[in-house]
Amino acid sequence: MNKKTFPIDTITIIGPGLIGGSIAKAVKERGLCKKLAIAAREEELDIVKRSGLEADLYHQLASSIAGADLVVICVPFDALKTILLQIKDHIEPQTVITDVISVKKEVMTLFSELLGEKVEWIGSHPMTGSERSGFDAANSLLFEGSTTILTPANHVSPLAIDCIKTFWEKLGSIPIELSAEEHDALVSEISHLPHLLAAVLIESVSSQSLQLVGPGFKDTTRIAAGCPRLWKSILMANRHYVQKIGEKFIRQFQKALNILQQGDEKALFELLNKAQAIRKRLEKK
Amino acid sequence: MNKKTFPIDTITIIGPGLIGGSIAKAVKERGLCKKLAIAAREEELDIVKRSGLEADLYHQLASSIAGADLVVICVPFDALKTILLQIKDHIEPQTVITDVISVKKEVMTLFSELLGEKVEWIGSHPMTGSERSGFDAANSLLFEGSTTILTPANHVSPLAIDCIKTFWEKLGSIPIELSAEEHDALVSEISHLPHLLAAVLIESVSSQSLQLVGPGFKDTTRIAAGCPRLWKSILMANRHYVQKIGEKFIRQFQKALNILQQGDEKALFELLNKAQAIRKRLEKK
Repeated sequence: MNKKTFPIDTITIIGPGLIGGSIAKAVKERGLCKKLAIAAREEELDIVKRSGLEADLYHQLASSIAGADLVVICVPFDALKTILLQIKDHIEPQTVITDVISVKKEVMTLFSELLGEKVEWIGSHPMTGSERSGFDAANSLLFEGSTTILTPANHVSPLAIDCIKTFWEKLGSIPIELSAEEHDALVSEISHLPHLLAAVLIESVSSQSLQLVGPGFKDTTRIAAGCPRLWKSILMANRHYVQKIGEKFIRQFQKALNILQQGDEKALFELLNKAQAIRKRLEKK
Repeated sequence: MNKKTFPIDTITIIGPGLIGGSIAKAVKERGLCKKLAIAAREEELDIVKRSGLEADLYHQLASSIAGADLVVICVPFDALKTILLQIKDHIEPQTVITDVISVKKEVMTLFSELLGEKVEWIGSHPMTGSERSGFDAANSLLFEGSTTILTPANHVSPLAIDCIKTFWEKLGSIPIELSAEEHDALVSEISHLPHLLAAVLIESVSSQSLQLVGPGFKDTTRIAAGCPRLWKSILMANRHYVQKIGEKFIRQFQKALNILQQGDEKALFELLNKAQAIRKRLEKK
């Protein structure tokens, strides 16, 4: 590819849900391209149309990527293969492809198997979100201050990596590069484990108690309101790392229960004090 | 006691921290008493003084409760005994006493041992809060829409119970009566277990991963920023129930990990789908 400077000619977004929709809105607000193409099923396109967002709408994937400089695939992992099969024979030489899926090793494997090394593809994972979903919940400021992890394949040109980095920066995010394995281990800890904990917590609580929950319980379990189909596909795709950190969590939690059983006030205070110190530092980020 | 109608003559708040301070501010804003007395250590009273809140300030507990219709003790559980020992011989016949501590069985036992059946005392637990603490974090709207659990002792008069109920209602909360045991089992599920999970989650995550956390992780662990001394005393006082629900949680979480290991997509979807449905219903409360 040649060096691209923003505004680039054409950006195509496949899947205008929460993330794809937020990208679309931010791209328009910030004037990052001359033409914005959005591809989706008819009923999703109707929602975009009703919103008044200025974009070219396609239900044919192949047509939507014609002439594109950048294609951002914003679908859950279990829909990726179908998408790639439909576009693989229509990708033009200048096109850079990325995705926004929360697991990266399996995504990179699929990209590699279906697109090979002739296409420039780079994994992206914007580390932000909402428990809401769909285009109506999309928000052009969703990426402000977030981190986006990039997992470029070995064959990809520095120019293509630079294009994707600049793209996320223009959306307000800070891009960092990691290997797909590093990414998957890391998000299993800070995203996938918390999600599973929140879901199991909700199901461990009696219905009488649920009548009386306060803001603390609501905060702790907010992420469990996320789309079950999306999260099923994320947790399945990353289950190796989720199991590993999950087993570690059980061991640590069992230790905390042992501290309670022994009535060891000093150890309990140390545990809570350390957690508070770490949590307070996160607030400053 | 005689029937009390608000505004009553004198309310005394012992301990103007987050909860005591929020009560003090709400009581003044809503004109619930003619005289508001606040008792605390000198340095805490200085903070109240600087805030400009109109109240009579005492560092002598005995003087602070002279003439009081209602005394609200707003200190952590491990400070309760000292407080009761200092006031027990100065409580007047018209005075109703309550507290705001998050465990109730051990509180009721202390009340019973130190105040006996001649004094009207009723346990209260306003089911609200914040990860912040101290008078400066206090907020007169903290109780709006919350539930407050009351655990009256058997000897207490219906008039005294009515006074405490009305008091919480005037602060915007909905009072409900439970036994101390029912209360402790219930809050172990929706408050104490989530707190311990959040603290252990923070300590299970690598420091590299913590650099990259998004809003989901922050929500899930927000409560772990709460005061470690306060939470140590809560978890210790209720450890019987916390251990029980904690062990149940481990069994359920291990089941979820087994589902992942078996790659059982259907079971995982059902788990996430059920959790989402329950969590969404909470949002409407």
